[in-house]
Amino acid sequence: MSSYAIIGSGGLGGFYGACLAHAGHNVHFLVREDAASIRSQGWILDSAWGDLVIQSPNVYNEVDQMPVCDFVIVAIKSIQNDQLRSLLPPLIGPKTIAIVLQNGLYVEQKTFDVFGSGRVIGGCCFLCSSKIGPGHIQHLDYGRIEFGSYLGQGGSGADVDAKILEQVIADFSASRVPVQLAANLLTARWRKLMWNIPFNGLSVALNASTAEIMGNPAAERLATTIMTEVQQSAEALGLDVGQTHAQTLLENTRKMVPYDSSMRLDFLASRPMELEYIFANPIHAAKQAGFVPQQTTMLYEQLCFLESRNQKLSP
Amino acid sequence: MSSYAIIGSGGLGGFYGACLAHAGHNVHFLVREDAASIRSQGWILDSAWGDLVIQSPNVYNEVDQMPVCDFVIVAIKSIQNDQLRSLLPPLIGPKTIAIVLQNGLYVEQKTFDVFGSGRVIGGCCFLCSSKIGPGHIQHLDYGRIEFGSYLGQGGSGADVDAKILEQVIADFSASRVPVQLAANLLTARWRKLMWNIPFNGLSVALNASTAEIMGNPAAERLATTIMTEVQQSAEALGLDVGQTHAQTLLENTRKMVPYDSSMRLDFLASRPMELEYIFANPIHAAKQAGFVPQQTTMLYEQLCFLESRNQKLSP
Repeated sequence: MSSYAIIGSGGLGGFYGACLAHAGHNVHFLVREDAASIRSQGWILDSAWGDLVIQSPNVYNEVDQMPVCDFVIVAIKSIQNDQLRSLLPPLIGPKTIAIVLQNGLYVEQKTFDVFGSGRVIGGCCFLCSSKIGPGHIQHLDYGRIEFGSYLGQGGSGADVDAKILEQVIADFSASRVPVQLAANLLTARWRKLMWNIPFNGLSVALNASTAEIMGNPAAERLATTIMTEVQQSAEALGLDVGQTHAQTLLENTRKMVPYDSSMRLDFLASRPMELEYIFANPIHAAKQAGFVPQQTTMLYEQLCFLESRNQKLSP
Repeated sequence: MSSYAIIGSGGLGGFYGACLAHAGHNVHFLVREDAASIRSQGWILDSAWGDLVIQSPNVYNEVDQMPVCDFVIVAIKSIQNDQLRSLLPPLIGPKTIAIVLQNGLYVEQKTFDVFGSGRVIGGCCFLCSSKIGPGHIQHLDYGRIEFGSYLGQGGSGADVDAKILEQVIADFSASRVPVQLAANLLTARWRKLMWNIPFNGLSVALNASTAEIMGNPAAERLATTIMTEVQQSAEALGLDVGQTHAQTLLENTRKMVPYDSSMRLDFLASRPMELEYIFANPIHAAKQAGFVPQQTTMLYEQLCFLESRNQKLSP
């Protein structure tokens, strides 16, 4: 059995942490508040895969109280990534490995800056899940993760030891989480961005669910056009996302239940949106590779305007 | 003195009609309703240039009741242009000339189809004015018109007789309307589109006034980028809009009082937006000339989506 520290115990970290703990791993949750009451009520997961409760979970309000673990799962909102510089060091032992389950391009970089080369795994998660109360997670659907070594923003870092990656994959698999090893983490990230950029972005810019977007010819053209442009950005970086991937994403989205993207949920709740890693970094990377993604940039600028107004209005 | 039929007596037609009538011209207003009560109350203009009332104005509910005039001013919303095929014929005598004061590219075409070559003048209006009641117009600011011959969508039609253009310019000038003759009507239309496309479009897509757009760096970049793209579209058509025009437009907009574009007012009131002539035709023309205006197209698709939802929600 491995030990896991969960940094950010919301819908994502709280879900995977519960899965790992239920399978017998030694899981330690960092929570912002309510540690005592969560300890007594248990860590509750209402899941599409079956409900469960972790009795007397290890929960902490401060990282200093947490033990050094085999793995540190980074699952805070990426807009808080500046906090990682102080959150992570107390958790690192000689062999500790970071697993960054956040969303976006180079979202592992701040963790990499602390952990160093060969010690950061990135994970692309495909999950519908949210925190509905202290220590209480509701999992609606999906949950697959694609893992891969993060090599640093310049791509020159070392791979994580293959045995360690195997261990992570074994731990998650035994915790009923469908996992796979990505041939190339960067490609996996871009494949996910091909959905996130058009659908997160348009769902906020148009104030619309995925079903509304796919149900309107003009909005569907927008999504398709922007998705194609994200693919072109990835290709400018020399990555092969697969020629049928866009078509598959669109077809799956058409079949999805009406879904509010995490970015739209953040926006509607007046929380900051994860624009840096989902928009700014991909745009910057494409431009550096000589491709100007005009439509992605336009959507990003619109989101920046909406974000600025939203944050001004929020309390 | 000339005679003028005003087809569409809203904020624009009602304003210029009042100016012409006040100067002594023989003006006939087509109104949708309330002809009798307007006749008794007078045609009222509250204007930044001085209030006035036209006593016992000539108002009609039907074109069949209207006399043949020297000039027919087309000032209905362009979304109603299909009605021109039946509205215009009863108004045409052997020498009648049309003056199309609508907004957008090739917005004169349906009038041209009825009047024929050499008989249609286009006018680009720079006017803030609205109808606030039956026969009651409020003029807030501006009012300048640039006139020019409309040569048909293919550009192969004849110019309107120079003497007639001079007459129109003299009539409007004597009615205290600042006017000028455009060297090229098409160029004048594109110069206006350079403002309308970014600011009408973004004011709806971002639900923002011009002041909000110019007051936010991201939104200002969007406006500037789209304006530049409209200029590139015009240049692809071989038109020279002037190298300082964009800068001038942006500076003037920065100094403007917070202003709701006509498209935003239409949208907020759940009226259809004038998307065909302000967006679809310019995009189509640019593409035909070999230039793909990606960002204008993206904004247009967003507006199409918003329009579709807006019209679905409206009663």
